[in-house]
Amino acid sequence: MSVFERKLVRDFLHKTGHFCPIRRTLNAQNTATQMNIQPFLQENKDRFISELFELLRLPSISADPTYSSSVEKTAELVAYHMRNAGISGVEICPTPGFPVVYGEVIRNATGPTVLVYGHYDVQPADPLELWETPPFEPTLRITSIHPNGAIFARGACDDKGQFFMHLKAIEAMMASGSLPCNVKFMIEGEEEIGSANLAWFVERNKEKLACDVILISDTGMLAPGVPSITTGLRGLAYMEIELTGPNRDLHSGLYGGAVANPLNAISALIAQLHDKHGRVSIPGFYDKVADLPSKFRQELGLAPFSLEQYKDALNLPDIKGEDGYSTLERTSIRPTLDVNGLWGGYIGEGAKTVIPSKAYAKISMRLVPHQDPEEIALLFQAYIESHAPQGTTVKVTPHHGGHPYVCPPEHPGYRAAHKAVQQIFGKAPIPVRSGGSIPIVALFEKELGVKSILMGFGYDSDAIHSPNEHYGVDNFTKGIETIPWFYTYYSEEFTQ
Amino acid sequence: MSVFERKLVRDFLHKTGHFCPIRRTLNAQNTATQMNIQPFLQENKDRFISELFELLRLPSISADPTYSSSVEKTAELVAYHMRNAGISGVEICPTPGFPVVYGEVIRNATGPTVLVYGHYDVQPADPLELWETPPFEPTLRITSIHPNGAIFARGACDDKGQFFMHLKAIEAMMASGSLPCNVKFMIEGEEEIGSANLAWFVERNKEKLACDVILISDTGMLAPGVPSITTGLRGLAYMEIELTGPNRDLHSGLYGGAVANPLNAISALIAQLHDKHGRVSIPGFYDKVADLPSKFRQELGLAPFSLEQYKDALNLPDIKGEDGYSTLERTSIRPTLDVNGLWGGYIGEGAKTVIPSKAYAKISMRLVPHQDPEEIALLFQAYIESHAPQGTTVKVTPHHGGHPYVCPPEHPGYRAAHKAVQQIFGKAPIPVRSGGSIPIVALFEKELGVKSILMGFGYDSDAIHSPNEHYGVDNFTKGIETIPWFYTYYSEEFTQ
Repeated sequence: MSVFERKLVRDFLHKTGHFCPIRRTLNAQNTATQMNIQPFLQENKDRFISELFELLRLPSISADPTYSSSVEKTAELVAYHMRNAGISGVEICPTPGFPVVYGEVIRNATGPTVLVYGHYDVQPADPLELWETPPFEPTLRITSIHPNGAIFARGACDDKGQFFMHLKAIEAMMASGSLPCNVKFMIEGEEEIGSANLAWFVERNKEKLACDVILISDTGMLAPGVPSITTGLRGLAYMEIELTGPNRDLHSGLYGGAVANPLNAISALIAQLHDKHGRVSIPGFYDKVADLPSKFRQELGLAPFSLEQYKDALNLPDIKGEDGYSTLERTSIRPTLDVNGLWGGYIGEGAKTVIPSKAYAKISMRLVPHQDPEEIALLFQAYIESHAPQGTTVKVTPHHGGHPYVCPPEHPGYRAAHKAVQQIFGKAPIPVRSGGSIPIVALFEKELGVKSILMGFGYDSDAIHSPNEHYGVDNFTKGIETIPWFYTYYSEEFTQ
Repeated sequence: MSVFERKLVRDFLHKTGHFCPIRRTLNAQNTATQMNIQPFLQENKDRFISELFELLRLPSISADPTYSSSVEKTAELVAYHMRNAGISGVEICPTPGFPVVYGEVIRNATGPTVLVYGHYDVQPADPLELWETPPFEPTLRITSIHPNGAIFARGACDDKGQFFMHLKAIEAMMASGSLPCNVKFMIEGEEEIGSANLAWFVERNKEKLACDVILISDTGMLAPGVPSITTGLRGLAYMEIELTGPNRDLHSGLYGGAVANPLNAISALIAQLHDKHGRVSIPGFYDKVADLPSKFRQELGLAPFSLEQYKDALNLPDIKGEDGYSTLERTSIRPTLDVNGLWGGYIGEGAKTVIPSKAYAKISMRLVPHQDPEEIALLFQAYIESHAPQGTTVKVTPHHGGHPYVCPPEHPGYRAAHKAVQQIFGKAPIPVRSGGSIPIVALFEKELGVKSILMGFGYDSDAIHSPNEHYGVDNFTKGIETIPWFYTYYSEEFTQ
C-alpha cells in the first residue's frame, strides 16, 4: 500500500469517527493489561488496515490451480507479519499441498498454551460481474450495518481479516508485555478445499502443536448488538456427479425424444433427492442424527430472529426447508443437501439445439452430530449409482468432507471467550450452533485431544463465499480488543 | 487455400479413388444433358473442395455476437462464388440482422422457376475440447461410413457443404449450357438462430422470390445405400428459463436447508415436465397433435432400422422416450421436450459451497402437425410461471420458433427429386419425416405459396451440431450430380 493509499485509509477512519477513544466497561481486575494495549492500538490502527489490504490483494484461491503462486506468496506474507508481530520460530511448513505457516510465543513452559488456527486461502470470487468493486482490490465503504465502514474484498471476513486480528492482538500484547500465556499459530492454506493436507501436518507435528485449547476466528456473530459464540459446526460431505447419456453431443431434432437427455436426466435425479416434506431421500441419511432435547430447541427458539427481515434481506418470496423445523433449526441442528453447481449443454448466448453427452452436478451435504461424512458419502454414492436414470450412466466422485463438532458451554475455553466478548461488547454472548463447517475442528479434537473455541466476529450479512464479501472495520478492531481478554480469562480459568 | 493445400486435397481425392469416372444408370432421354456436365465435374473436382474449405474456415456462428464480422465476411464469399458460377444479379441484401445473399439465372420468363434456399451461418462449435481437429480448420479424413473421405469442420454438412453443391451444380450447368429452367438463390445467415429476419426479407421481396417450388439441401439421407428424401419437418419452440431464489449467492453452510436452492428448484421444475410415460406434462401440449393413420405408421416401420446398432453407435445403455412409440416415430411424428443447456452455481475446478442466486435452462420443444409454436410457447410459459417452486420466482423468455411442415409425395417437385435421386443413387428414395426443424419452410409456404423440396445428402451420423461435424466427399459430389437431374425432371413435370 502506497503512502497515498495509507493516507486515504487514515482519512476514512478518522472521518467516520473510527478509532476515537473506545468506550468499554472495564473490569477492575484487568485494567492494567488493557491500559497497556490501548495506546498501541490507537497509534497503529491505520497501519493494521493497510497491512490487511496488502494481504487481501493476493488472490489466494486454493480451489483453482491458476492461483497457486498467489497462495504461496500469501503464505510468505503471513510469515512476514508473524515475525513483525514478535512471534518466534516462524516457519513456512511444506505439506503435500499448500504450506502451513507456524509460529509461537512461549512465555512459560508449564503455563497454559493456546493454539490459534486460521486460514490464508480464500473462496473463488466468481461470479465476478456481481462485485461492485474488484474482489482483490480492497476498498472501504460505509453500509447500513457497518456505519464506521467495512472492508470489501474476497477473504475480508473469511478468513484473512479474522486471523489477521490475532497477529495484531499479539503484536499489541508483545509491545505492552502483557501476554499471560503461551500462544502458538497455525495458519493454513487449504481450508476452502477441505483442509486436504492439514491432517497430514497435524499428525506429523503433534508435539509442536501441543496445547490446551484451540482458538479460531472463522465464524460470525448473530447481529450488531447481539454478540454470540459458536458452540457447534455442521459437518460436510461434498460430491460430484458426472452423468453420461450418448457418447457425443446430438442434434435435438434428429435424436430428441428417442434418447435420454442427460440434462433432463440429471434434473430428475436431483429432484428425487428430497421428498415432499423437504427431507433428504437417501436411505440411512438420518439414521445417526442426534435427536436434541426439547429444552435445547426451546433455547434456540429464544435467539432473536425475524422471518420477515430474513426474507426481506434476501428478497425471498418464501422460505423452504424440512417440515417441522424453524429456520434457525434448519440451518444449525438439521442436516441438508444442496446442489452447489450444475451444468451441461449450451450455456452461451442465444440458442443451440443440442442434446449434450454429459451433465454435471456438484452437491454438498451438511451433517450434524453424529453423522459420519465418509459413511454419508458412501450412502450418497450407492443411492446415485443405483438410481441412474434409464438410458444413462452415472459416476460419483467425492470431494472433501468433515465431521460435525460441538463444544460444551462449561469448557474453560468457552467460559473465557464468553467473558472476553462480554467485556468488549457489553453483553453476554449467546451460544449458537453454526450451519457452516470447519472440517478440521473435529480432527483437532481427535488428533490433539483438545476442544476448539469458535470466537468469530463477522456477521451472516458479510457475504462470505459471495460477491461483495466484506468485514466491518469495527468488527476487526473489536476483535483485536477482545482477543487479549480471552488470554487473560483463559489463564485465570486454567490456573483455578 | 494455398497451392500446397490444393495439391494435398487433390492427392487425397485421387488416392481414395474418388472422381474416377462415375458409374450410373443413364436415362436415355437425358443423356445429352448429363454428358455435357461430366467433363466439367471431372476437371474441377479438387477446386470445388478447395473452395469449400475456404468457406468452412470462416467461423460464421450467428448465435454469438463475437463472430459477427465473420458472418458478414462469409456472406461476401458466398456472393463471390455465386458471381463466379455465372449467376446474375448477385446482391448482399441487408436485413435487420445478417444479410441474405441473393442471385438468379433467368432462362425463360414463362418457364418454371426453382428457388434454392440454404444458409451460410453455422452452429457454435463448443465443446471445443471434443473436436479431433479444430472446427474451423477443415481436414479430410477417411471413416468407416465415408471410405472415400469426409470433410471435418463446423458447417461441413450443415449447411455450407450442402448449399455449396448448388452453386457448383449451376456452375457446371452454365458451363455446359444445359440448365432447363430458371433458378433463384437465397442463402441466409440466421438459420441457426431461427431465421429471425428472413420473414422480414421474404415479406418485402415476394416478387423477386416468386417461384414454383423451393429446393433445399439441409437434411440427410437414412444411410449409405439407403437414399431418402425428407417429406416433413418438426416445428420448434425454444425457451429460456431464469429462476431466482435469494438476491445474492449464499454460503450453503449458513443458509443451506432454510432457503430454496435455485439449482435444486430448477431440477424439480424440469423433472416435472415429463410424466412417467415419457409424455410432456404441459396441459394442452398434445391437443392439436395429428393422429396419424395406422397405415402411415406401418410404412414408417418398414424403414431400415436396427435398435442394437443405434444403441451401439451412441454407446447407450438403453433408449428412452414416449411409451407406445418406436424410436423412428419418437424422432419424427411425435413432439418432444429437451433441455439444451442448464447452468448455475460453481462450475469450475474443485469445490465451492455456494447456493447461487440464479439458475438457468434453455429448453426446446419439437413440434408436429398441427401444433402451433406460438401457442406452445404460451402454454410452456404459463405452465412454468405457475409452477415456480416454493421460495423462487421464474421468468420465461422465448427464443425462436417454427411451424412443422409436410410435403405430399404427389407434388411435382417431390416427384422430380425422387427421380433425380433414383437416377444417381440407383435406388428409389424412401420418403421420411425428419425430427429436425427448418422453421422457414412453413413460412415460405405461407408467404410465397409454394412447397419446399427437402433433398439433402448428409447422414445422421455426420454429427451436425456436434463436435467433429463432417460431410462425405461422395455425398458432396453425388449431390452436385443429382441437382441437375432435379432441374431436368422438374421442368418435365412442370410442362406436362
